[in-house]
Amino acid sequence: MTDKEKRTPISELGEFGLIDHLTEKVRIKNKSTKKGIGDDAAIIDHGKDQTVITSDILLEGIHFNLIYTPLKHLGYKAAVINFSDIYAMNADPTQMIISLGISNKFTVEDIDLLYEGINLACDNYGVDLVGGDTSSSLTGLTISITAIGHAPKNDIVYRNAAVINDIICVTGDLGAAYLGLQLLEREKKIFVEVPGAQPDLGNYEYVLRRQLKPEPRVDVIKKLKEKKVRPSSMIDISDGLSSEILHICKSSGKGCKIYQEKIPIDKETEKLAEEFKLDPITAALNGGEDYELVFTLSMDDFEKIKETPFIHPIGYITEKSQGYNLITPDGILVKLQAQGWNAL
Amino acid sequence: MTDKEKRTPISELGEFGLIDHLTEKVRIKNKSTKKGIGDDAAIIDHGKDQTVITSDILLEGIHFNLIYTPLKHLGYKAAVINFSDIYAMNADPTQMIISLGISNKFTVEDIDLLYEGINLACDNYGVDLVGGDTSSSLTGLTISITAIGHAPKNDIVYRNAAVINDIICVTGDLGAAYLGLQLLEREKKIFVEVPGAQPDLGNYEYVLRRQLKPEPRVDVIKKLKEKKVRPSSMIDISDGLSSEILHICKSSGKGCKIYQEKIPIDKETEKLAEEFKLDPITAALNGGEDYELVFTLSMDDFEKIKETPFIHPIGYITEKSQGYNLITPDGILVKLQAQGWNAL
Repeated sequence: MTDKEKRTPISELGEFGLIDHLTEKVRIKNKSTKKGIGDDAAIIDHGKDQTVITSDILLEGIHFNLIYTPLKHLGYKAAVINFSDIYAMNADPTQMIISLGISNKFTVEDIDLLYEGINLACDNYGVDLVGGDTSSSLTGLTISITAIGHAPKNDIVYRNAAVINDIICVTGDLGAAYLGLQLLEREKKIFVEVPGAQPDLGNYEYVLRRQLKPEPRVDVIKKLKEKKVRPSSMIDISDGLSSEILHICKSSGKGCKIYQEKIPIDKETEKLAEEFKLDPITAALNGGEDYELVFTLSMDDFEKIKETPFIHPIGYITEKSQGYNLITPDGILVKLQAQGWNAL
Repeated sequence: MTDKEKRTPISELGEFGLIDHLTEKVRIKNKSTKKGIGDDAAIIDHGKDQTVITSDILLEGIHFNLIYTPLKHLGYKAAVINFSDIYAMNADPTQMIISLGISNKFTVEDIDLLYEGINLACDNYGVDLVGGDTSSSLTGLTISITAIGHAPKNDIVYRNAAVINDIICVTGDLGAAYLGLQLLEREKKIFVEVPGAQPDLGNYEYVLRRQLKPEPRVDVIKKLKEKKVRPSSMIDISDGLSSEILHICKSSGKGCKIYQEKIPIDKETEKLAEEFKLDPITAALNGGEDYELVFTLSMDDFEKIKETPFIHPIGYITEKSQGYNLITPDGILVKLQAQGWNAL
């Protein structure tokens, strides 16, 4: 029973703590439910094939700021971050449902722009928009997207099956989306203080694109299939590398060693981090929103893909008792922590 | 291209107009997409079985008012209204995903109550909660639910296959949920004007329950299966009987004749309507939120279930050219119109 007198602020538990607390009592009743809460997506069984399903909710003022986010980009991003969760299960996104809450500050033309982005994402990734719900809202824009994907049963990769000595790989580069956000926030502040000031976005096209129009790594998923490599575990990077690696380690019951100097960071990210007096490694570890993939592979499988330019080994899986370790360039072991976005 | 100068208020199109406008360009690319936008749920094909999937978004101040909606009831209702959409496809709900946006006025104990309701609904209807997303929100509570169901391919009933001379049936009784809302709104107003006033909810338990804790008609779906009856078309009543019958007629390319005196209305609903000086028929036709089913049946099939107490024939399907008609007790033909909730 709930103690009516007790009033615990949600911040006391945090997002992951709240989810754990709310879902600890959930019991699975249907045979078709292969995987419930606790991965990038849920898995529903149909015999030979499985359905992969995931949802994200995006709220104005929390997940996006319309001062610097074009509505078309927002629609695109809202869709692809869900596709990214499906790819992270080694499945293909096929259908999507979108629910919108729209306040009266938005016009039909605004929502058209949002849908242009959604439709472009669906076209680029071969996904069908199959339904949704549209409602008026008292305050701002709310976007809730559910993406559905499919894969043969044995293809699906969970986050809980990393094996000791597996190589930990990340794709692309990290931290850019976070720096892109810092840049947009800085220019917003100047704009608010000096109305009419033109934004100085400099030559930072790459970090801005990473923040405003991320692309999920379907190319990586295709490359792994082409090389007949199936990762032992995989997750996409929405909350920052640290947080995601800890998800893999904790659900697999393992530890890890990550080499800081192996973490891939783009030159533009490094340059802008310097301008902001930020450590680029902190942005890569905790920034999030890069929508790259982290996965673990056996040594044999790693040999098959090690020449792929956008796949980078950054460490390996250890026994749980060794803990979660980041090794600095000086060889010092630091405990890997999930600080997430807000703690930066 | 969007004309940047044009600013069309969304109210000019209305909810259904906006959905039509946004989705007219959507093309289906995947073979597995059996049914996209335009029914209670989308259908995804897996050969012998099909997946049925639907979403609803509920926003504080628009869909619910926490002054008179207990959080446990809200969680229950948010879940079952999605199950109702699945049953309306003649399928069984099996999985559910929930996304929440939570402002800092809510505590862990509040969200526990919400989840108590969600879990109770899942237990009552055999549904697994398999995932979701939880986020902070700047303003109030947002609940977005996706429900997934399953059915053998040939069981699924769409809204677009009503046949001329089919009997139109509704289940249970209508208008009660709307009157329940009127009662709660009245007591809220008194409470705001006279703080400390005790709500006078009288002996209106039934209409209050219909508003606060609706139940989807799984019993009807079971009865139809037991009698080996498959409706030619079916829809659940979320927006009011008129609106739902028009959905069936328009997507089937047919007309209808509805006999006003056949529309089932509970005594308590009638009595309260009188108190509010409302026509109970208006509440039944346009009130919505009853979560009863409307379906069409061949005469032969109707014979098999006509003794079932909670299934009521209210009219029949005609040629499209005859239009959408309501026949008053005096025999006058009135055009059936989808006024929806707000126009009342």
